[in-house]
Formats: sequence, structure tokens, C-alpha cells
Amino acid sequence: MKEFSVGEEIAAFVAERDWAQFHTPENLAKSISIEAAELLECFQWDAEASPERVREELADVLTYCLLLAERIGADPNQIIVDKLAVTREKYPVDKARGRSTKYDAF
Amino acid sequence: MKEFSVGEEIAAFVAERDWAQFHTPENLAKSISIEAAELLECFQWDAEASPERVREELADVLTYCLLLAERIGADPNQIIVDKLAVTREKYPVDKARGRSTKYDAF
Amino acid sequence: MKEFSVGEEIAAFVAERDWAQFHTPENLAKSISIEAAELLECFQWDAEASPERVREELADVLTYCLLLAERIGADPNQIIVDKLAVTREKYPVDKARGRSTKYDAF
Amino acid sequence: MKEFSVGEEIAAFVAERDWAQFHTPENLAKSISIEAAELLECFQWDAEASPERVREELADVLTYCLLLAERIGADPNQIIVDKLAVTREKYPVDKARGRSTKYDAF
Repeated sequence: MKEFSVGEEIAAFVAERDWAQFHTPENLAKSISIEAAELLECFQWDAEASPERVREELADVLTYCLLLAERIGADPNQIIVDKLAVTREKYPVDKARGRSTKYDAF
Repeated sequence: MKEFSVGEEIAAFVAERDWAQFHTPENLAKSISIEAAELLECFQWDAEASPERVREELADVLTYCLLLAERIGADPNQIIVDKLAVTREKYPVDKARGRSTKYDAF
Repeated sequence: MKEFSVGEEIAAFVAERDWAQFHTPENLAKSISIEAAELLECFQWDAEASPERVREELADVLTYCLLLAERIGADPNQIIVDKLAVTREKYPVDKARGRSTKYDAF
Repeated sequence: MKEFSVGEEIAAFVAERDWAQFHTPENLAKSISIEAAELLECFQWDAEASPERVREELADVLTYCLLLAERIGADPNQIIVDKLAVTREKYPVDKARGRSTKYDAF
């Protein structure tokens, strides 16, 4: 059973440090790109990467994504499900199955 | 803020299309950077952005993040909380409060 | 008068270190994204940035771009001019002048 | 490898369209990240990419880099050479030769 709520943990962390003032949607979008590149850096010269480092960098991307979702009043799970429905129409199973042209799926 | 609970919906979507074959950790890391840049594009020339477009692009980043978490066997909620604990030590409240030097917090 | 050739300096630098083996087009493309994010980090929380830091990060992006151009046998100046011609057709002066919708110019 | 010599062509292109007003250093830094991700997209699911598409996307990254150099009053060739000198000290030949740990060279 879950004893914690991730959203509340992040919100408390930010509030304690008085950092919400920096978290405009634009700054958070920049931050997501910056953290995504740190994650990519784990794979810069090699397809293999340190699992520990990948977990930490992925966590940073996710944290800024949750902060942006909160900031724009979006439910992260809901927007994922909504977008899946859009993509489902764009890439119906019978056309998309196993094709490498899927590269613009999202 | 919510925690993530849509892993199964995403997994079903990918399985129907037989796309897991493309989802190496390295390819997913590239995909996260690519989608993060599409999100950033909403703010390329302006701090204001279309809320609808931001929601969709954020959903794409999140979807690839959850796919990578699944692929490396990590619980997305858990790695966020674990990384917050690390950052908490690095940026104790009394030193970090309201400082703009927080830019390397994550 | 120029006493140096930038391309030769970079090539010598790489050769001395035997690093060409890492420089596949894919790895260089990842590296360009990673360095671009370090440049963006100069502006993460503020529109103002340290000029020295911006110069250094911009130099890193440019260096990897030149390495990729070399690797794929492209003349960097020529591909810029060629692409300007394409964009010129897409955005003729009379339609594009001063419009903020220019965001997808490139 | 060539050095850069097309600053005037780019400047004329921008001036005709009256686009300099959008080209703050921050916006150009965002643009470089966005275009770098479009270049990366050529390699999203595969180490092979269309040479034509790579040339066009690389040209876009370079164009924004030269615009930023111009905007901050930096000579693109000079900052590359200056940064190489810094990296040369950080990664002396005898320590860096052929090592995969070169990933943070720039």
C-alpha cells in the first residue's frame, strides 16, 4: 500500500525552498529540455548506461513534468490518456503494427 | 498533484502496435529529448503558449518517460521520491530558500 | 588576417586524442542536443546570462556541428546557404515581414 | 573542415524579414535546442538517417548558432578556438587518448 503521495512530496519540497516563484511554464519547459539532455548524456557514446544514473536523471525529468502539469492545472494521468486516444486514431493498430515509420507517433 | 497510474494503458497501446521492439533505453532517451523540445517549441518566441498544445506535448514527454521507467524496471513514483531525498540533502532549506542559484537543483 | 583554420584545429584536436572512433553521426547528433541544452541552461531561470558562459557553451555546440558536417562530408557554409534558399521560398519577404508566426521558419 | 563565413547572408535574410526583434539571446538559445532535437529526430529509431534530412536540420542548428554569435558580438571561429584551448588543458593528450570517458570533453 502506498504511504506517500508523490505530488504532495514535490509540492512540499518546493514550498519549503520558496522556489515556486521561478516556476513559470516557460522556465519549466526549459528545465524539462535541460534535464532530458542530462538523461540523454547517459547514452552519449554508448547504448549502455549506468542504471543508477538513468534512474536519477529520469526522476528529474519527471519531477519538472509534474511541476509543469500542476502549474497549468493539468492532471498528468488524464493528459496522457487523452493524448493516447488522439494517437490511437492517428495510428490505428492495423496500419501501425510493427512498422518503423512509427517515429512520429507522438 | 497526482502520482502516475497509467502504466497499463500505455503498455497496452504499445503492445497492440508491436512497438516495444523499438523501445531500447537509448531510443527512449532520445525520444524524451525530442518531445521535450516540441514542448519547448510552444514557448520559442513567447512566454505565453497555447494551453491545449502544452498539454499535448507534455503528455508525449510523460508517455516516453513512463515507457523508459517500465523498460528499466523502475517505479516512476518511487524514483521521484528517492531523488527528492538526494536533492533535499544537497539543498537544505536554510541555504536554498528563495535563491536564484537554485538552477542546478535537479 | 586569419592565421588559423578552425576546421584544421578541431581535426588535430580530435586526432591527437584518437576520438574519431566515437564520432558516429548518431553520437554527434546526441552530442549536439546535449550541448544545446547546456547552452539553454545559461537561461534556465533568467533571460540574462553570463556572457562568458554563453560563449563557451555556444562554442561546444558549434564544434560538434562542425564535426558532424565533416563526418557526413558536408560543407557547413554551403548547407546553410542552401537551406536559406529553401526557407526563402517558404517565407517570402512580403508574407513573413515582422510576423510572430515566423516560429517555424527553420 | 571549413570555418564560418556566411554571417552576412544570414543577416540579410533576417533583416529583409524584420525578424531580429524576436532574436533575443534567450529565444535563440531555445531555438538551438529545438533545432538540435529535430536533427536528433533523424536518428530517433535508427543509427542510419537520410543524408538530405540531416544536412537540412544541421543547417538550421548552425544558422541559429551564428545568429546567437552575432547577437552577443562573438566571432564564431574565435570562440571555437578559444574553447579548444580550454579543453586541451582539461584533457591532455596523454590522459585522454582513446578513452571512452571522454564523454564530458566539451
